Amino acid sequence: MLSDIEIARGAQMKRIGEVASSVGIDEDELELYGKYKAKLSDELINRVKDNENGKLVLVTAVNPTPAGEGKTTVTIGLGDSMAKIGKKAVIALREPSLGPVFGIKGGAAGGGYSQVVPMEDINLHFTGDMHAITSANNLMCALLDNHIQQGNELGIDQRRVLIKRCLDMNDRALRNIVCSLGGKLNGIPREDHFIITVASEVMAILCLAEDVFDLKERLGNILVAYTYDGKPVYCRDIKANGAMTVLLKDAIKPNLVQTLENNPAIMHGGPFANIAHGCNSIRATKTALKLGDYCITEAGFGSDLGAEKFLDIKCRLAGLTPSCVVLVSTVRSMKYNGGVEKAI
Amino acid sequence: MLSDIEIARGAQMKRIGEVASSVGIDEDELELYGKYKAKLSDELINRVKDNENGKLVLVTAVNPTPAGEGKTTVTIGLGDSMAKIGKKAVIALREPSLGPVFGIKGGAAGGGYSQVVPMEDINLHFTGDMHAITSANNLMCALLDNHIQQGNELGIDQRRVLIKRCLDMNDRALRNIVCSLGGKLNGIPREDHFIITVASEVMAILCLAEDVFDLKERLGNILVAYTYDGKPVYCRDIKANGAMTVLLKDAIKPNLVQTLENNPAIMHGGPFANIAHGCNSIRATKTALKLGDYCITEAGFGSDLGAEKFLDIKCRLAGLTPSCVVLVSTVRSMKYNGGVEKAI
Amino acid sequence: MLSDIEIARGAQMKRIGEVASSVGIDEDELELYGKYKAKLSDELINRVKDNENGKLVLVTAVNPTPAGEGKTTVTIGLGDSMAKIGKKAVIALREPSLGPVFGIKGGAAGGGYSQVVPMEDINLHFTGDMHAITSANNLMCALLDNHIQQGNELGIDQRRVLIKRCLDMNDRALRNIVCSLGGKLNGIPREDHFIITVASEVMAILCLAEDVFDLKERLGNILVAYTYDGKPVYCRDIKANGAMTVLLKDAIKPNLVQTLENNPAIMHGGPFANIAHGCNSIRATKTALKLGDYCITEAGFGSDLGAEKFLDIKCRLAGLTPSCVVLVSTVRSMKYNGGVEKAI
Amino acid sequence: MLSDIEIARGAQMKRIGEVASSVGIDEDELELYGKYKAKLSDELINRVKDNENGKLVLVTAVNPTPAGEGKTTVTIGLGDSMAKIGKKAVIALREPSLGPVFGIKGGAAGGGYSQVVPMEDINLHFTGDMHAITSANNLMCALLDNHIQQGNELGIDQRRVLIKRCLDMNDRALRNIVCSLGGKLNGIPREDHFIITVASEVMAILCLAEDVFDLKERLGNILVAYTYDGKPVYCRDIKANGAMTVLLKDAIKPNLVQTLENNPAIMHGGPFANIAHGCNSIRATKTALKLGDYCITEAGFGSDLGAEKFLDIKCRLAGLTPSCVVLVSTVRSMKYNGGVEKAI
Repeated sequence: MLSDIEIARGAQMKRIGEVASSVGIDEDELELYGKYKAKLSDELINRVKDNENGKLVLVTAVNPTPAGEGKTTVTIGLGDSMAKIGKKAVIALREPSLGPVFGIKGGAAGGGYSQVVPMEDINLHFTGDMHAITSANNLMCALLDNHIQQGNELGIDQRRVLIKRCLDMNDRALRNIVCSLGGKLNGIPREDHFIITVASEVMAILCLAEDVFDLKERLGNILVAYTYDGKPVYCRDIKANGAMTVLLKDAIKPNLVQTLENNPAIMHGGPFANIAHGCNSIRATKTALKLGDYCITEAGFGSDLGAEKFLDIKCRLAGLTPSCVVLVSTVRSMKYNGGVEKAI
Repeated sequence: MLSDIEIARGAQMKRIGEVASSVGIDEDELELYGKYKAKLSDELINRVKDNENGKLVLVTAVNPTPAGEGKTTVTIGLGDSMAKIGKKAVIALREPSLGPVFGIKGGAAGGGYSQVVPMEDINLHFTGDMHAITSANNLMCALLDNHIQQGNELGIDQRRVLIKRCLDMNDRALRNIVCSLGGKLNGIPREDHFIITVASEVMAILCLAEDVFDLKERLGNILVAYTYDGKPVYCRDIKANGAMTVLLKDAIKPNLVQTLENNPAIMHGGPFANIAHGCNSIRATKTALKLGDYCITEAGFGSDLGAEKFLDIKCRLAGLTPSCVVLVSTVRSMKYNGGVEKAI
Repeated sequence: MLSDIEIARGAQMKRIGEVASSVGIDEDELELYGKYKAKLSDELINRVKDNENGKLVLVTAVNPTPAGEGKTTVTIGLGDSMAKIGKKAVIALREPSLGPVFGIKGGAAGGGYSQVVPMEDINLHFTGDMHAITSANNLMCALLDNHIQQGNELGIDQRRVLIKRCLDMNDRALRNIVCSLGGKLNGIPREDHFIITVASEVMAILCLAEDVFDLKERLGNILVAYTYDGKPVYCRDIKANGAMTVLLKDAIKPNLVQTLENNPAIMHGGPFANIAHGCNSIRATKTALKLGDYCITEAGFGSDLGAEKFLDIKCRLAGLTPSCVVLVSTVRSMKYNGGVEKAI
Repeated sequence: MLSDIEIARGAQMKRIGEVASSVGIDEDELELYGKYKAKLSDELINRVKDNENGKLVLVTAVNPTPAGEGKTTVTIGLGDSMAKIGKKAVIALREPSLGPVFGIKGGAAGGGYSQVVPMEDINLHFTGDMHAITSANNLMCALLDNHIQQGNELGIDQRRVLIKRCLDMNDRALRNIVCSLGGKLNGIPREDHFIITVASEVMAILCLAEDVFDLKERLGNILVAYTYDGKPVYCRDIKANGAMTVLLKDAIKPNLVQTLENNPAIMHGGPFANIAHGCNSIRATKTALKLGDYCITEAGFGSDLGAEKFLDIKCRLAGLTPSCVVLVSTVRSMKYNGGVEKAI
């Protein structure tokens, strides 16, 4: 039996422009990243914004097992199947983080013959969204520490900074650090932390923002710290949100790749489902609804957590209503969640 | 008078495929990043590798003033001028770092009517090279700390780690940190440091590597730490260089942009001139020599530092010989270096 | 009304030798610390060790209020009263810590006309017991870190060190520190903590030890850390308990002072009642029982905590049985613990 | 041959009151610490302050070898010899630090048959002077950090704190620390350092102070930090010097012990000779001059460093003039300093 990566490497990919044209996108409406990846331009999104929405299909799952129950493969499989029976379906997935790839979990591009490709590119830097989010988040942190260093006009309490630096890397050494050591020129010492990029509030915000103006506004609302007097300090108070938005101007554009059967797949955003809402971006889902008769998407974790967040947070905020919910279940998960001991 | 950014925004750019074709590159030999940026594919580099070399022109300068003497603008201007008189010239520049852009220095894409474009993209994430180098460097550091955490078979002395984490950001708070705090699950505490990405050894190596095989070999040679017994530990000992090379597989490909006059400009790599050799990549310079009759390139800092490093390090290692050296000088630098007080 | 300190300063103290003679102690059996403080020598303790025991009286209290209910003043008052009616009573108290004196709480030498004197000396360095405990504890910590530095033959996991350094000072800045920074010559970095001396295990042990041999044995049993393999490391494994015992050779001798009415009061040891057993030393209590017909002592906190610890830990370990328990109660505490709001 | 400690243990000590009476001190003018140690009371010092001064003899040495050339043994020997020929001589020495005792160097109580006793007590806690200095110094540091924590009215820059905490212990782990970690309740994080107590400015000041009033004044002058504006902050600004003086009220009193031949030896203070002036206290030297016809004292290190400091700092400040300087030299030091290789 072929491994996932062998299947992915054997894929007969089409140029991404050709894939895009199957849902009515002109190649000029794409921003290419090599031959098989592209970002959807603002021009495209504007052009289709008054199209009628397709039907929204959410794929969720029973409480998962450590192996995962197959939400992504079912989502991709559904997309390919509907294409096979002549339906115009666009799937909308989360994009993977480098961290877990080099850490403990597998990639997030599906498996077997239900994959999106080019798999290795997607699992590496892809179109740079994670790096842009990392840069934006860390610029905010650097500006905050710089504000404290340059006289601290706002009176920020260095013991009550809420934002954390981030890297797209599983790096336990950076979870808890003391920074700004080395004397007068190197800042005001404090305890700090790094998180993985997908766990940052910037990632969550990117996935909820309507457009760059909304993005800038939402970034400005990040509660970054408290003052010595206990007053909240927001990102806009340290004037970081403008530059952050510039750094995110491309990251906010949805990415287009293809399934192994050359059907279009939008992958965009990927906030952690434990600390954030765990779905791909609203922009991506909305664009998919405008481009296809069906948008098939998924939500992280089991239905009790992920589907609830999808319905209560993402759908309410974006004004979306799913027409159908697919619940993935396996005999393994029934046994596992029913208390049968896990065979390793 | 128009500012640099106004001039850059008013540029009449051509599609990068069209620019490339002026030096005989087929669009299929490019990996596009949007319409105006591309990476030169390995296929292209292989196809032209037996071409006759053009002539190598080095642009350097007298001891600089704080304002800079104009090496980059002269380099770009020379390229455009030679094109205007019908010569096939390719310029080869360093690519800028985000850090200085958001820090104190300006971008590195020239100025006035001697600029390369799309200037803003180049000064932001460009094609992701900096991010890839950041990721590769930090993966090496994470693997080193992980080795220490998982039993430390090599006996690495946590007080004698030589490599430093990096970010493409001017962030003084991270210069001196204590990491791995928080108990047994969060690593072995030690003092660590972040540097700016362009100051990393990974950046210097990327600019000296012939190809991915050479890159992997050179990365493996990085001296990462000493053991408790005082023995050296290399990057290959912690098995980091393979994964680092994967992360750098695209970053090693030279980037193509254009001048304001639509002539081809290769921008690739940018190690600091103070702690490394301060030139663009050997791969970029060599490819430029194969594509044009003239390759016009520059070296960081004044001639006494930058040109020396260019001649003694880069040229010797790569087997290059400049046919001409252009020395940029200004009345201002003559006065400044001659002791006339600086008017601000 | 005179303040406590005014009353104390007005005391008509007798030479401590004279006070001692009232319970049959020869001046040569004392080790003088100035005119009004002395340590009871080992010779004395040996001489009286076969005397018949007096009766043990424990003073405890209902759940206290922030103001304290007066256990110490009742204890001292009882002692003076029994002397007045011709009974040979010796009171046995805890000695105070400098930390709370310079911190938030008052001294521990009673109040009003129920005080022990010389009050200021008692509340400052007294006979140096706290300093000796501090030195012993910190020597153990220094030897542990030195063991790790000198090759760490035992494989001590620096993240699982259980002992903490201490000072006889309320110093919040030292509660949580990172130590051993500064490179190869300055140790192996780790997280450490300072506690107040009276909260150290060394203090608790000093108060439970029969004599110096028992003290050395008990100090040797301190669990100082775990190895990388999860095995316990004891104080004796790092060979610290011998030197610690030398440092404590005088601190283990009970101290003698006097009440305002010139009756003998033994003050010795003072482990915190929250994290340890909260009573004065077994040696002091036992010696008081040998010297007087009555030994009146107290236990920290309310009866539910302090008296329980006194009965369950100190009495069982030392083979003591109280003949009488005095429960101090106040209208204020009845109201306070019954839910009446505290008037400030 | 008997070792130093065997000789010391075999000493036939006289009661310290008896020793004191040989130079006209009444036992009531002593504050006893056991039978063989005492502090000289303020009453004594006042009584003799108008006595005629004896002659001051300084013992110094050529550049020392690692073994030490014998300044202390010569000083003690001179004292005993003069007593033997009927002269009333009082020797004045520095008191030893626990740190070096448990660290690398030997004690400071002489050697062979030129020792002061009780040697073990002197080398352990003695009369608590080191502990009092440690407490005073650390109280100052705690008050400084508390000032910063409680609103920092003075604007103290936590990166420019000049005073360091101390312990009377050789503990490399505390040389460089980061303190005040753990959040809002645990202070404002900063880099701090511990030094050994004898290297503290408080020790140097104690040895230069005329009396407690002068002590309080000098302690108040300690430069503890700079503000964010670069202005100096003194100990008196954080109101620490009063409480420090209280803690030092006994430590400022000179200690009296005896030589093996039962002659009086004053030991008091001991600032390091490398960073401070390296002599015993002015109060001790002056009192010795009032009590004896000769005061024999020493200065740390070789004559080029120690005698210079003695003459230029201590003598000038105290208005002293030595009548005689004894220069200790050995064949070993002649060879060693002349370049002959050290035989180990």
